[in-house]
Amino acid sequence: MIDPTINTDRAGEDFIADFTSLSRIGATPGGGVHRLAGTVEDGQLRAWLRNWLESRDFTVTIDAVGNMFGLIEWTPNAPYVLVGSHLDSQPMAGRFDGAYGVLAAAHAAVRVRRNVTATGQTPPFNLAVVNWFNEEGARFQPSMMGSSVFTGKLSAEHVLAITDPDGVSVEQALTALGYRGTDAAPETAAYAEIHIEQGRHLEKDGVSIGLVDATWAAHKYSAVVRGEQSHTGSTVMADRRDALVGASRLVVALRDLADTFADSALHTSVGQLFALPNSPVVVASEVRMVLDLRSADAEVLAEADARLHEHVAVIEKRDGVHIELTQAHFWGVQSYQPEGIDLARAVAGELGLSSQTMMTLAGHDSTNLKDVVPTVMLFVPSVDGISHNEGELTHDDDARAGVDMLTEVLARMCQGALQDAVLQHAAPAQVAQR
Amino acid sequence: MIDPTINTDRAGEDFIADFTSLSRIGATPGGGVHRLAGTVEDGQLRAWLRNWLESRDFTVTIDAVGNMFGLIEWTPNAPYVLVGSHLDSQPMAGRFDGAYGVLAAAHAAVRVRRNVTATGQTPPFNLAVVNWFNEEGARFQPSMMGSSVFTGKLSAEHVLAITDPDGVSVEQALTALGYRGTDAAPETAAYAEIHIEQGRHLEKDGVSIGLVDATWAAHKYSAVVRGEQSHTGSTVMADRRDALVGASRLVVALRDLADTFADSALHTSVGQLFALPNSPVVVASEVRMVLDLRSADAEVLAEADARLHEHVAVIEKRDGVHIELTQAHFWGVQSYQPEGIDLARAVAGELGLSSQTMMTLAGHDSTNLKDVVPTVMLFVPSVDGISHNEGELTHDDDARAGVDMLTEVLARMCQGALQDAVLQHAAPAQVAQR
Repeated sequence: MIDPTINTDRAGEDFIADFTSLSRIGATPGGGVHRLAGTVEDGQLRAWLRNWLESRDFTVTIDAVGNMFGLIEWTPNAPYVLVGSHLDSQPMAGRFDGAYGVLAAAHAAVRVRRNVTATGQTPPFNLAVVNWFNEEGARFQPSMMGSSVFTGKLSAEHVLAITDPDGVSVEQALTALGYRGTDAAPETAAYAEIHIEQGRHLEKDGVSIGLVDATWAAHKYSAVVRGEQSHTGSTVMADRRDALVGASRLVVALRDLADTFADSALHTSVGQLFALPNSPVVVASEVRMVLDLRSADAEVLAEADARLHEHVAVIEKRDGVHIELTQAHFWGVQSYQPEGIDLARAVAGELGLSSQTMMTLAGHDSTNLKDVVPTVMLFVPSVDGISHNEGELTHDDDARAGVDMLTEVLARMCQGALQDAVLQHAAPAQVAQR
Repeated sequence: MIDPTINTDRAGEDFIADFTSLSRIGATPGGGVHRLAGTVEDGQLRAWLRNWLESRDFTVTIDAVGNMFGLIEWTPNAPYVLVGSHLDSQPMAGRFDGAYGVLAAAHAAVRVRRNVTATGQTPPFNLAVVNWFNEEGARFQPSMMGSSVFTGKLSAEHVLAITDPDGVSVEQALTALGYRGTDAAPETAAYAEIHIEQGRHLEKDGVSIGLVDATWAAHKYSAVVRGEQSHTGSTVMADRRDALVGASRLVVALRDLADTFADSALHTSVGQLFALPNSPVVVASEVRMVLDLRSADAEVLAEADARLHEHVAVIEKRDGVHIELTQAHFWGVQSYQPEGIDLARAVAGELGLSSQTMMTLAGHDSTNLKDVVPTVMLFVPSVDGISHNEGELTHDDDARAGVDMLTEVLARMCQGALQDAVLQHAAPAQVAQR
């Protein structure tokens, strides 16, 4: 255990003040934030973090796809323990998703360094705070973009050429912000991340810390529904091939599919839909959308996927449309290293924090990192599980407890606590996506 | 009858050449046009028409909302017979919708003037070719905007402040193009318009000219579906209030409602839909769309409207969303003046063109004009009735026959043929919309 007297922010007041400060960047009138990856607001918060780190003697580096690292080097040429999350947000989103984890990492790193200085116990690993580029995938798809490049699942060249709906590329956006870096990413020994739960289990059970042991499986499709453009008034109904009708029937079928599985075993959704040409008096010629199916049970997901394809065939025939489904991202139920879970459970116990293991329904950058290095993923409670919404809230006490928890886990990881952990997976061919 | 030898374009070759020329402006690779109201392409075609008219000694004037008039004055201070249509198009639309009617009007006017000069029979009315601003309503709603202001159904001030989805106002768009005019609109005695059918009745029956005797009734609603923003992955299905699911259920209900009425008596559609925030991993908080119900039978429309509201209540409860329907435009089955139909029928007979009366399912600028002056609305055949689609086609022979028909009708209207026609309607409170 780190000697508590070494921590100059024992009441966590500095942490809360810093979080309040950064939450002003991209703030929305409804109490949330709007900081899409590669936008001006993302750049402003990056500048804020860079200043915070450099004023505390971190060395800040930027890699080719805008991942930011704040380095503390104790042992030249030794690999780094990384700790962080992401600063970008969804549109009109909450303050905590991502940003909480980055700031918690920065504060935890400062505390660990203070302890190293005080005790003189130089760790075998160096330490780096990280802000991953574009975890959300709201403006540029896919999500978890920076960590996907970092872990070799996507190439930097591929990612830099991806464009947003206005045709602006990742490279253009990063260059405009000054975050198209040239630094090599640090060699990495292990990774830790803390995040709000985005669910209500911890709150309901009155538990302080979630120990993530696995991800839900997910099937994500890009769907294109093709019909024929015509006049909404004059075209006889029987002659129409209305892409928006076909798309709407698919949205409804996917939603109702979830209800055919008991115990909330299947989550389904369509979050994004573009109709073309989208004029009030024109029958839509084409609709593009993203389908999202998730389950903790691979068999449930396979069954749901089969039924989805049955619905597609029925809708194609009924509405005279053609529906093309392209696999955007598929991943299975994937485990985090049990050694990391054991470490975190022990730390929580020593700190007097209640904890429980749980799965994550959402994807995180740790989903990528766990495939290449031993990884610890922690959750703190989130009021009513509200997520991707301005009303997202984690109470100050829970937020501070999370920083304390992360600090102690990080200290032990820097000392080599997970050196012997065995990777559960080879790097998969598919990139996981939130 | 005008002496055919007076017409220097008896084979209609000049007309077809001019139509080919103007169809190059805003041309799409698929053989259609893309010339939304107030865009650069609209401005280019306006310049083309202005040049065409001025080089033939028309006086071109522009009113406050961008309506263009090409005036021929024989008798100072006498009112004008107007003839025209619109040059703007839907997105990725056909070449004929609107533009055919404007060019036919211009050619007909030249022929009528030539006849007046040759015969020395000065008409009691003057003559004006008109290009109404924004008939389509694709970029700025409502449609039939220019003729609505002209007929006093909307104020110029109201219309000029209307914005497109990017926040550009009608006034800004017209000013940028140089078509925010200051000329007074001409005093009007009567109106004539020719248009492609946008249906397949004429083609099927082998008839050359449609004599429009009435409009279908229509109910148009702006709909806002409100839910709650959340995470597509982590939010439990039962906790979701998905605006896109509610909206999709409404699209499907409206489509299937049409099938509950026999004989294609009801047309329904949703052509435009915007989802917010429209991110792949965010459950939609809000969807905005336009609902369109049309029928030739007012009782059918009333019954359909009642059932639509029943569906709304069911969907609100089922999906936990709130649905707000706002009446955008309502109009009933409305007649054109029988005197105009009789005149056109007689002309067709004298020209050896087959004709039949028919209703229009789509709205036209003539829908507005008929409420304030005697109005003749003519259709020419359209292959397969394809409309609001690049594949829209009217054969040259049919297009030329339409110009001949319009010329003779116009000549007689200028001589006062409809002076005694009785208006069927007082100007209604609601503006008709396509």
